[in-house]
Amino acid sequence: MVAPKHIASKDNRRIKDLKKLQQKKYRRKQDLFLIEGAHLVEEALNHGQKVQTLIALEDYDYSPYATADMEVITVAPGVMKLLSSLETPPGIMAAVSYRKPSSEGRRVLLLDGIQDPGNLGTLLRTADAFGFDRVILSPDTVDAFSDKVLRSAQGSTFHIDITVADAVQSAREFNGTVLGTSLEGASSLEQLELPEGPLMIVLGNEGRGVSEEVLSNVDVRMKIEMPGQSESLNVAIAGGIIMHHFKA
Amino acid sequence: MVAPKHIASKDNRRIKDLKKLQQKKYRRKQDLFLIEGAHLVEEALNHGQKVQTLIALEDYDYSPYATADMEVITVAPGVMKLLSSLETPPGIMAAVSYRKPSSEGRRVLLLDGIQDPGNLGTLLRTADAFGFDRVILSPDTVDAFSDKVLRSAQGSTFHIDITVADAVQSAREFNGTVLGTSLEGASSLEQLELPEGPLMIVLGNEGRGVSEEVLSNVDVRMKIEMPGQSESLNVAIAGGIIMHHFKA
Repeated sequence: MVAPKHIASKDNRRIKDLKKLQQKKYRRKQDLFLIEGAHLVEEALNHGQKVQTLIALEDYDYSPYATADMEVITVAPGVMKLLSSLETPPGIMAAVSYRKPSSEGRRVLLLDGIQDPGNLGTLLRTADAFGFDRVILSPDTVDAFSDKVLRSAQGSTFHIDITVADAVQSAREFNGTVLGTSLEGASSLEQLELPEGPLMIVLGNEGRGVSEEVLSNVDVRMKIEMPGQSESLNVAIAGGIIMHHFKA
Repeated sequence: MVAPKHIASKDNRRIKDLKKLQQKKYRRKQDLFLIEGAHLVEEALNHGQKVQTLIALEDYDYSPYATADMEVITVAPGVMKLLSSLETPPGIMAAVSYRKPSSEGRRVLLLDGIQDPGNLGTLLRTADAFGFDRVILSPDTVDAFSDKVLRSAQGSTFHIDITVADAVQSAREFNGTVLGTSLEGASSLEQLELPEGPLMIVLGNEGRGVSEEVLSNVDVRMKIEMPGQSESLNVAIAGGIIMHHFKA
């Protein structure tokens, strides 16, 4: 392992570059994103992610996480606070380059325009729980590598093949059964059996649901029966119920 | 209807009093909470809530919501911004006193220490969808009448009998079958049939789950089978899957 570099100043160029990763355009440009806290760093290391830089508070024992091929930076508390998105900054962070884990593609989740970071993170965590190992995000879905999404995904990000692709094309070209949520002309989820072969579940935007253009490419329209007074379910809850129904 | 009172200054005493309702202790003290936006105001009015004060932007047509027994205040945009918790303040808000709707109490949700406002709001919305018309919150559960909880509950707050009560006692004294989530000694949800008679579902804190003291008072410990790699589910997702399984 190379000796760590210590940085005490917020004005340091390296720190400024790392802070830019809080913005999506720099994450894209540099193919890097920031993760916070020992749990996510461990998950990244245990699941084949490329940790480029380890960032630790000056008195933090980062040795369990450091390997020969990564840069290590120790920082003053003020610098950690600058890089962290949390009110209470963690002792350790990392800049990571995403490596897709292998996926069988037998259970795929297609997200058409999800806007809330918490919903996306929770959907990734839930997909991971029920054996949906590939998640396709339409280009207008919120970025999967922002701090909020990473935090609510709780490490599932590193277990799932996450791809950004056109939703209509992904539904149309899927080699298996495609099921999308819809309020009209829909079968009750409760009546549906697990289809043979690969399965794709399509969920839509929090306000408008799955777009008509995508829905015209699904094999089955489904809805969840609601005997109560709510007009609708939160999309992550709907996704949880549906993925549980069709789980591996 | 009394003529509306117009307030242009943020320093007005009435406005200062209303702003205090952003804090839990004043909500308790005054038995009032703030709701934002036409949808929640409509839901409150349609479900027997006591709207004490209607607060509208000076150019907003509040007439569909105003009745003889409420105070109406029209305000300048700066005042609305002060009272609202949103970056883009709504055109209308209200100060409301909670009136519990009647509940059959045949499907009850008991929440033992939920901390995240979004989780609580989503659980209320989901309970409402599946016919759970009474929700009991342990005293250490986050307040159900904060802006974030109200927003994610999307009006379900007004359809459900929400009560704060001791969790251990509520589980012990429930006149029916009590089911709580647990990782140890638990039956699979998938194997459980709907019990006869009243039903109580117990969900716990995001970190520690249902406390042992409460668990020792449940009839059935249950867990959701997860074939994938996640270590756990978000509590609102777990609640969604369970309430869907036992829905009305």
